[in-house]
Amino acid sequence: MPKVIRDMLGRQGLTRVDEALAILLARLGTVAPQTDTVPLASALDRITAGRIVSPEDLPTHARSTMDGFAVQAVDTFGASESMPVYLRITGKIAMGEQPAQMIERGCCAQIPTGGLLPPGTDAVVMLEHTVPIDESMIEIVKAAGVGANLIAPGEDIGKNGQALPAGHRLRPQDLGLLAGLGLDQVEVCRRLTVGVLSTGDEIVPHTEVPPPGKVRDINGITLSALIRRAGAKATLYGIVSDRKEIFFPAVEKAVSENDLVLFSGGSSVGMRDLGEQAIASLGNPGILVHGVALKPGKPIIIGLTGTTPIFGLPGHPVSAMVCFELFVEPTIRRLSGLAAPDVFPRAVVLARLARNINSAPGRRDLIRVQLSRAATGWVADPVLGKSGAITTISRAHGYFLIDEDSQGFTQDTEVEVTLYL
Amino acid sequence: MPKVIRDMLGRQGLTRVDEALAILLARLGTVAPQTDTVPLASALDRITAGRIVSPEDLPTHARSTMDGFAVQAVDTFGASESMPVYLRITGKIAMGEQPAQMIERGCCAQIPTGGLLPPGTDAVVMLEHTVPIDESMIEIVKAAGVGANLIAPGEDIGKNGQALPAGHRLRPQDLGLLAGLGLDQVEVCRRLTVGVLSTGDEIVPHTEVPPPGKVRDINGITLSALIRRAGAKATLYGIVSDRKEIFFPAVEKAVSENDLVLFSGGSSVGMRDLGEQAIASLGNPGILVHGVALKPGKPIIIGLTGTTPIFGLPGHPVSAMVCFELFVEPTIRRLSGLAAPDVFPRAVVLARLARNINSAPGRRDLIRVQLSRAATGWVADPVLGKSGAITTISRAHGYFLIDEDSQGFTQDTEVEVTLYL
Repeated sequence: MPKVIRDMLGRQGLTRVDEALAILLARLGTVAPQTDTVPLASALDRITAGRIVSPEDLPTHARSTMDGFAVQAVDTFGASESMPVYLRITGKIAMGEQPAQMIERGCCAQIPTGGLLPPGTDAVVMLEHTVPIDESMIEIVKAAGVGANLIAPGEDIGKNGQALPAGHRLRPQDLGLLAGLGLDQVEVCRRLTVGVLSTGDEIVPHTEVPPPGKVRDINGITLSALIRRAGAKATLYGIVSDRKEIFFPAVEKAVSENDLVLFSGGSSVGMRDLGEQAIASLGNPGILVHGVALKPGKPIIIGLTGTTPIFGLPGHPVSAMVCFELFVEPTIRRLSGLAAPDVFPRAVVLARLARNINSAPGRRDLIRVQLSRAATGWVADPVLGKSGAITTISRAHGYFLIDEDSQGFTQDTEVEVTLYL
Repeated sequence: MPKVIRDMLGRQGLTRVDEALAILLARLGTVAPQTDTVPLASALDRITAGRIVSPEDLPTHARSTMDGFAVQAVDTFGASESMPVYLRITGKIAMGEQPAQMIERGCCAQIPTGGLLPPGTDAVVMLEHTVPIDESMIEIVKAAGVGANLIAPGEDIGKNGQALPAGHRLRPQDLGLLAGLGLDQVEVCRRLTVGVLSTGDEIVPHTEVPPPGKVRDINGITLSALIRRAGAKATLYGIVSDRKEIFFPAVEKAVSENDLVLFSGGSSVGMRDLGEQAIASLGNPGILVHGVALKPGKPIIIGLTGTTPIFGLPGHPVSAMVCFELFVEPTIRRLSGLAAPDVFPRAVVLARLARNINSAPGRRDLIRVQLSRAATGWVADPVLGKSGAITTISRAHGYFLIDEDSQGFTQDTEVEVTLYL
């Protein structure tokens, strides 16, 4: 007798995509990843473990932001084209020099952009607002307020001011900022390790010639590259038989050695049952979701043992990739310590649909597309392929989604295409 | 007497952004990068050196794309709900099995999705179009044409059919495709090496406390991370004095050891002259562009010695980064063997400007922005900062461009923001 499949809440049937991910993320709750301290030169794309504060005031000394003359602002008050003020040049500041000489009232010092203000001065008059009289005297034709054309100590960033927030992925410019603050070591979240098993007795390693009826493993390679893209490390367990006495211990070993485990394969009902049993056997909370209202990707199983998520992905490479994108990648982000992603958009383009696309209501469809450039903008042409075709996996430039409440889109509808970068 | 600066064509003044890049790319012409052969597991983000063809027909045997019954199509012709055809079940194909038994006229074999078609059959009738009579007989209620519900040998990809074009960056799904074709080694373009020098006697290593008037090196770290992002390898030459007898041999050494060289620093006229002289001293064609109508980034110098591009970037970290993005990165792409980028969009979002932004006509402005989410979509808030401030370098989520023929945009204008990923 076939087992009636129910989800954790005792409901029968398929779970909506958003709900499926929310169920897992709610269970994971707040995550405090382990941390590593790494040098800046190795920190690209790592995630900050805590907020990073400046160890010092920057700049440490007031600097000019213009080529001009450092002055006491009060000496320039009232200056205009018709009523210029005359100042004596008693100094010339060189770039990189620490000026020692005091500039008195009625005097000024020539200063380059970036030059340090000499003692006594509190403003810079731009070169354009001066007229040279001779080598030792200038006319000031416009008044400068206190602090004009300079950057004050600590104005860029104050000591203990926040340079970067926690949970921030370090881009090249962020590393530059940390270098500018003199920080050579940065505390980052440890990279997650993700165990990957390919299952099914019809799968052979991609390096082998498959006998008739068998196919090469595609998911091992694709999933480990996706894991690397997501900033985690893949541990490959190769192809594991779908016999219970081999499969169960293999999953258990992967769970004990990784922060997250994926197995792919087993779109067959028998294999699906085996995947569920394996997750259930590993302990609470066990199976969270089995089957989502998604095409492709419907047969995904999502489970949790202790704090380790386990995903049973469909065997078809396109379906496995879609499930990775929609469920596994957001889970990796959460566990990696990355702050909520909604402050930052994904890479998308708007494109017009090249043809009608139908969808069943109540289901989310992910439609993979090729993009081409027309005079009016981007055109999105759906990538369709027969079940079992593998070349379609690499044909798409990106995808768009058709939501549960839509029955599809007609030709020329503008869709938002998330890019496969 | 100040030297009058002219470009290669003898013209005085600033070069337009598009023209500056076009001058260099035209000089580079068609590039044939050196190649490496790497295993799939290490090939993520590498660029294919040539087109990759399938070594075999895929699938090698006809496979069912549905659960159903393998038949001789001719036996089903004319079948309908009211006039069903009766077929005897003489086989049952298991997944992964190579069927040996011939299916005769009037007979059929049960077959799962992905199962191999047994000898004699040329179509699959979907389970939904059959009605079971007993264990050895079914009714067919809909006709199936030859080739229905199966994928024929070579239909996915034929032997010597193109799997991937030349100059294609390998994404996870592309590696999956190659695995499916049984290709474990892939010929890719060799990674470029890019030499990086930071110049200027006011620069100290970021690991040191700068004495007053000096600043830490930011560009070394930022540029090497940008180079890595662009798929190349950075060779760091550290901080090089801007004295001619030290600077010239250092640039020459970097040119001899790399495919491309960047030096940054020297926004001062003296340093700029030195940079130009260094490039000129290395031989033809020498300086191609000095000074572009761009803000920030105006003082960039672009040169070429033999086939090695040399970029003199502005010293200010934000300006250096902008010049990298607009000039160096496209040059790296070209030299890396990547096919023309116009077939694929950059990662952009549309956003409304949070305030007015002015621009000088005849100049291209790059405006860095922070993005935030409003009810109506993304809002782009320009990141402004005083000259010499370093914290602004990491504040932007992306940038938009104001073209030479525009004098700026008013608040609420929709702009296309290229994301800093």
